[in-house]
Amino acid sequence: MKIAEAPVDNAPALPRVRFRDARIEMSHGAGGKASRRLIEGLIAPLLGGPLLAPLADAAFLEVDGARLALTADSFVVRPLRFPGGSIGELAVNGTVNDLAVSAAQPLALLLTFVIEEGIATETLEAELRAIAEAARRAGVEIVGGDTKVVEHGKADGLYVTTAGLGRADLRARLSPRSVRPGDQVLLSGPIGDHGITILLARGEIDLEADLRSDTRSVYPFVEAILGVAASGLRWMRDPTRGGVATALNELARDSGLGIVLHEEEIPVREAVRGACELLGLDPLHIANEGQFLAVVAPELAEAALAAVRAVPGGGEAVIIGEVREQPARTVLAAASYGGTRVVDMLVGDPLPRIC
Amino acid sequence: MKIAEAPVDNAPALPRVRFRDARIEMSHGAGGKASRRLIEGLIAPLLGGPLLAPLADAAFLEVDGARLALTADSFVVRPLRFPGGSIGELAVNGTVNDLAVSAAQPLALLLTFVIEEGIATETLEAELRAIAEAARRAGVEIVGGDTKVVEHGKADGLYVTTAGLGRADLRARLSPRSVRPGDQVLLSGPIGDHGITILLARGEIDLEADLRSDTRSVYPFVEAILGVAASGLRWMRDPTRGGVATALNELARDSGLGIVLHEEEIPVREAVRGACELLGLDPLHIANEGQFLAVVAPELAEAALAAVRAVPGGGEAVIIGEVREQPARTVLAAASYGGTRVVDMLVGDPLPRIC
Repeated sequence: MKIAEAPVDNAPALPRVRFRDARIEMSHGAGGKASRRLIEGLIAPLLGGPLLAPLADAAFLEVDGARLALTADSFVVRPLRFPGGSIGELAVNGTVNDLAVSAAQPLALLLTFVIEEGIATETLEAELRAIAEAARRAGVEIVGGDTKVVEHGKADGLYVTTAGLGRADLRARLSPRSVRPGDQVLLSGPIGDHGITILLARGEIDLEADLRSDTRSVYPFVEAILGVAASGLRWMRDPTRGGVATALNELARDSGLGIVLHEEEIPVREAVRGACELLGLDPLHIANEGQFLAVVAPELAEAALAAVRAVPGGGEAVIIGEVREQPARTVLAAASYGGTRVVDMLVGDPLPRIC
Repeated sequence: MKIAEAPVDNAPALPRVRFRDARIEMSHGAGGKASRRLIEGLIAPLLGGPLLAPLADAAFLEVDGARLALTADSFVVRPLRFPGGSIGELAVNGTVNDLAVSAAQPLALLLTFVIEEGIATETLEAELRAIAEAARRAGVEIVGGDTKVVEHGKADGLYVTTAGLGRADLRARLSPRSVRPGDQVLLSGPIGDHGITILLARGEIDLEADLRSDTRSVYPFVEAILGVAASGLRWMRDPTRGGVATALNELARDSGLGIVLHEEEIPVREAVRGACELLGLDPLHIANEGQFLAVVAPELAEAALAAVRAVPGGGEAVIIGEVREQPARTVLAAASYGGTRVVDMLVGDPLPRIC
C-alpha cells in the first residue's frame, strides 16, 4: 500500500474563520457579545500571531531587555463634548487606562485625527487643548501622530485614535488563569456615569440629571495597589463598552470560575439608576471611562482597597464580590434578602458610540 | 524705582497658536503647505512636548535602555481597493515605511478600525487578509488593536489607523541639520504610481492605463543602505502625500540648503506622465507608497545606490540630484538643456484621500 504524500504548499495555512454575520452592524462595535464574536471569529484568526492579544487591554513585548506594553483605541463618541469631558480627553484617558489595567506605567502617546472637512478650527483647537491637558494630568508624553481630512458628512466632526506605550510593571503577573476561588473583586467607584452622561447629552430622552462623565486616568489607583498588593493582584480591567457585566463575564469565561457580586454594594448614583430604570437598562452594562475592576487575593484585598481609597478620587472604592468555584463561567448578582440573578454580557447596542 | 515682580502663575503657559484659518478644509490633510500650517501652527504648539516630532516620520524615545521609534498614521483612502493594493495593505506598509525611513527596524503594529455600519463582512475580511499578508511580508508582528462601528454614511466603509513600534538603528544619525552641500539625493524608483492609480481607480477621469500602486515595504532597501553607507546617511523620507517635491522642500527648509534635481533622471512611467500632463499636475507632487528618498554623503552615494539596486524591486533606483549651498531653502529642477525651474511644495489638494 502506498501512502499518499501530503500536497506541497508553501503558502501559510488559511486561518479558520468562524464569523458568519454577512454585514457589520452597530452591535459589533458595542463591546458586548457581538464584538467578541467579531474579534474572536474574524479579526484575531486573520491577524493573529503569537503576540496578538485580541481582547486584553494591551499587548506585551520585549525589546532589547525593555518590557513594553502597547495598546491602541479609536474614539468616535457623539457628541464631541459632554459634561465632564470630551473626545480628546477620552482618547487620552482611555488609552492610559488600558495600559494602567495591564499593570503598565503609561509613558507615551501617539494621536491621529480623522477630521471632517468644514469643522470649525476652534472645535479642533478645543480638543487639542483637552488632549494636552489630559496628557499632562496623566503624566504621559505626546510624541507624534497624523492628520487626515475627509469630506463633509464623512466622520462626525472628528474621530481620534490613540496608541500608547507603557513600561510593564514586573511586580504584577495579571492573567484570568491566575484568578482563584476566594479572590475579591474591587471596584474603584460608581458605575455608569459615562454612558448615561453621553445618553443625556444627546438630548434623545426627556430626562435631566446633574451627571458628569467619570473620564480620568486610573493609573494613580493602580500604582497604589501595586505598592501594597502586587503579589496578590490577579487581574484588572477598565469596564468601558459593555460595562462591569461584560468585563466580569469575560473573566468568568476565561478563568472557568464563577463570580458572585453583592449587588447592594455596587455604587450607582441616583441619576444613573433612574435613567437605567426608565430605559430598561442595567447599570452593570453601562460604560465607564474612569473606573477599574481588580481581582485581588483575599489576604491582600483590604490593603488594596485602603490604598485605592487613600488616593484622591478613590474614596468610593468598594469590594463588590468574590470569585467562587461555582457556578463556573457565570456571573451572579446576589441580593441581601437572598435572591440571585445571572448577569449576562451586553447583547446588542443600546447606547452606540459612547467612546 | 521699584521693579515690579512677575505675576505668580502656576498654570502652564498658554502656547502660542498661529493658525488663523477658521475652518478645516481638505487641503489641511493633503500633506502640503496647508497641512504644514495646521501642524506647525496649531497641533504641535498645543500638543508639543520635548519629544513631539510633528513632521518627522517617527518619534524616538528610550525606555530602560532600549532605543525605540514610534509612529502612527490614519488611512482614509477611497476606493478601499485599487490596482496593486488596498487600504489594509497601505495601512501596514505606510507605517512600516515611516519607521524604515527613520532608520528603525519595524517590529510591531497595532491596527484600529472605524467601520461603517452595513459594510459586507467580506469587505472587512478582505482587508484583514491584506493586512496579515502585508505584515508577514514586512516581517512585523500585529500585536493588538481596536474596532469601532459608526452609522451608515459615516466613514466610507472603513478607516484604518496603524501605530508602529520599531527599534532605532544606532548606525544612523538622521537629521536635516546633518545634510551638507555635495550630498547626493537617492530615489528608490518611479514616482507617482500610487497617486495616479488612485485617481484612475475612482473613474472620475476618462483615462485608462496599466498602472498599479507601488505600495510595499521599503525597509529591505533601507537595511541595504545601512549595511554599506550608514555613516554617510543623512536623511530619509518616504514621499507620500505631497510627493517628492514636498518632502525635498521640507528638507531644504529645515536644512537651510538648496536641492538641485536632474529632472531627466527622475523615473516617471509613461502612464503617470500622461495623466499628469492631461490634468496639469506635476509628478513631483504625486503621492508614492513604496518609494523613499535618501540623502547620502557623496563618497558613499554610489555604494548606497548599488546596495538598493541589488535588492529585488530596487533596480530602478537612481541619484536624482544633489544638495547645494545655494539657492538656500529652495528646490530647483534643472533640465539638460540648461533651464531650471523652482519646485514648490504642494499647494491645495488636487488628489484628496489618496492614503
